[in-house]
Amino acid sequence: MRVAVVGATGAVGQEILKVLEARNFPLSELRLYASPRSAGKRLSFRGEEIPVEPLPEGPLPVDLVLASAGGALSKALAPVWAEGGALVVDNSSAFRYEPWVPLVVPEVNREKIFTHRGIIANPNCTTAILAMALWPLHRAFHAKRVIVATYQAASGAGAKGMEELLHETHRFLHGETPKAEVFAHPLPFNVVPHIDAFQENGYTREEMKVVWETHKIFGDESIKISATAVRVPTLRAHAEAVSVEFARPVTPEAAREVLKEAPGVEVVDEPEAKRYPMPLTASGKWDVEVGRIRKSLAFENGLDFFVVGDQLLKGAALNAVQIAEEWLKGA
Amino acid sequence: MRVAVVGATGAVGQEILKVLEARNFPLSELRLYASPRSAGKRLSFRGEEIPVEPLPEGPLPVDLVLASAGGALSKALAPVWAEGGALVVDNSSAFRYEPWVPLVVPEVNREKIFTHRGIIANPNCTTAILAMALWPLHRAFHAKRVIVATYQAASGAGAKGMEELLHETHRFLHGETPKAEVFAHPLPFNVVPHIDAFQENGYTREEMKVVWETHKIFGDESIKISATAVRVPTLRAHAEAVSVEFARPVTPEAAREVLKEAPGVEVVDEPEAKRYPMPLTASGKWDVEVGRIRKSLAFENGLDFFVVGDQLLKGAALNAVQIAEEWLKGA
Repeated sequence: MRVAVVGATGAVGQEILKVLEARNFPLSELRLYASPRSAGKRLSFRGEEIPVEPLPEGPLPVDLVLASAGGALSKALAPVWAEGGALVVDNSSAFRYEPWVPLVVPEVNREKIFTHRGIIANPNCTTAILAMALWPLHRAFHAKRVIVATYQAASGAGAKGMEELLHETHRFLHGETPKAEVFAHPLPFNVVPHIDAFQENGYTREEMKVVWETHKIFGDESIKISATAVRVPTLRAHAEAVSVEFARPVTPEAAREVLKEAPGVEVVDEPEAKRYPMPLTASGKWDVEVGRIRKSLAFENGLDFFVVGDQLLKGAALNAVQIAEEWLKGA
Repeated sequence: MRVAVVGATGAVGQEILKVLEARNFPLSELRLYASPRSAGKRLSFRGEEIPVEPLPEGPLPVDLVLASAGGALSKALAPVWAEGGALVVDNSSAFRYEPWVPLVVPEVNREKIFTHRGIIANPNCTTAILAMALWPLHRAFHAKRVIVATYQAASGAGAKGMEELLHETHRFLHGETPKAEVFAHPLPFNVVPHIDAFQENGYTREEMKVVWETHKIFGDESIKISATAVRVPTLRAHAEAVSVEFARPVTPEAAREVLKEAPGVEVVDEPEAKRYPMPLTASGKWDVEVGRIRKSLAFENGLDFFVVGDQLLKGAALNAVQIAEEWLKGA
């Protein structure tokens, strides 16, 4: 299995390398591609230093492309790589809403992998993390209405987002006024309810991604979903406060039992021991943490819960590698 | 009008002094009280340096007590001050749920001030800020269901909370592991879904305060409210993502018109100009910022919006001084 990582020097690209190594992905050859600016660097993989190549315009000499280099680039080149014979797992939003492109969280809709026509889309990070907790509950109790408020980390804007947060926080602590180039406004000691572009309906594209992608991944457009996406000064794990109305009766105990059985989910729900999901504990973890599970006070059959997942892992690199693993296992 | 500020050296106490001065509160004498540890300090007010006195056990020689020194102290002494002839505006949660104690946001239920029996309670900061936006909308469209996720600043834990956040952030940036003494877990680059004690129903007391206090202030227990209260690494403004289902039809335009007329509310809702409520802009401001107003995708007659208010001002000091001002104006 010859594998290419496109965008290898980015925050997600580097995590893809770590995940491939940690999960012992069966590859025979690894090619790393990035922008000409980064080409010439070397990245470590299984003890070897692998050179980063500039991305050619044509097909890539591999069987699998894990792409994380932005929507415009994927839009232009993913079809070329696919026509060249590779399966492309694309982390950008370029193909997610194409009806012919599967959008996959393996724990939810693994079967869609095998309908691919050369490209499989990896979901938006917030959606993937939400889906991990919501899908098992939806299967058990049937979600009718979902309200999500997010606490999204700087890593959603890539390595440069994390750098800006750290650098500007440092400047703030030294009495300087923080600046914003990556984010819409300075992020240190602030929260910014603006991620991606505003849409005509007043929602941001980031908020609508949660709606569109959850519907597509679950194969159920009847669930009513409303989201508020907020950037907060954390580094690499997204948190989400979720309220769900279910069609069927539900209790926190029953929900916990369902979630304990769910793959990729860790129930962290011992409030008296101060154990609940947090970026501090979920960062670097493959599983998504779910906790603060309680009966909603707003809905008759409802639950409130808090879910936190590593934005760079289940929100991006890990899910992409898992898609490739399942593809290799076969239908 | 002889005024005492109890807890004068705390984060809220110091803001009370600034608000009294900025609003030219008609006082003839100002006494400052704090714990013996802080007694002997001097605080500036209208160009004078006023000594901080240790709090005596008996009544205070004033007409008005603005108390912000914790629940235990208020529980013990507010009745003594009231029996001594002073009106006590108490910032703690000690008396908020007593049926005989008015709980007041002047823009909402000013008339309750005049039913007092010596003590008026100042609401929880999150509730006061939410009430500013929710009340005018409730009057116009009748709220049935409210779902709130909060982004609460370190100042909610007082000056020592703000100090811990700054100090531990500094340590984090220098490669050290942040510690937590004030907060349940380290706050730098983290979010913590745990404020105040956990209740039997799985909600924290901070979350239940939003329910209990909104019901009492609005005089309407029929509104179903569910809250998730989360501490985030900001300094002194609380943000809240709010979803509301109304009984009557509502549009974002109609809601904006209502909120533009509401006292104490600033509509900050020009997303295309990157103008929306943020801690960065709401800190130090008397008005509460409301924006991101949009039709809810979860409810037929619903709105989503984002509200941010200074936790130390409308969330505490300003509201307390406003209660005293309205009391002076009379029924």
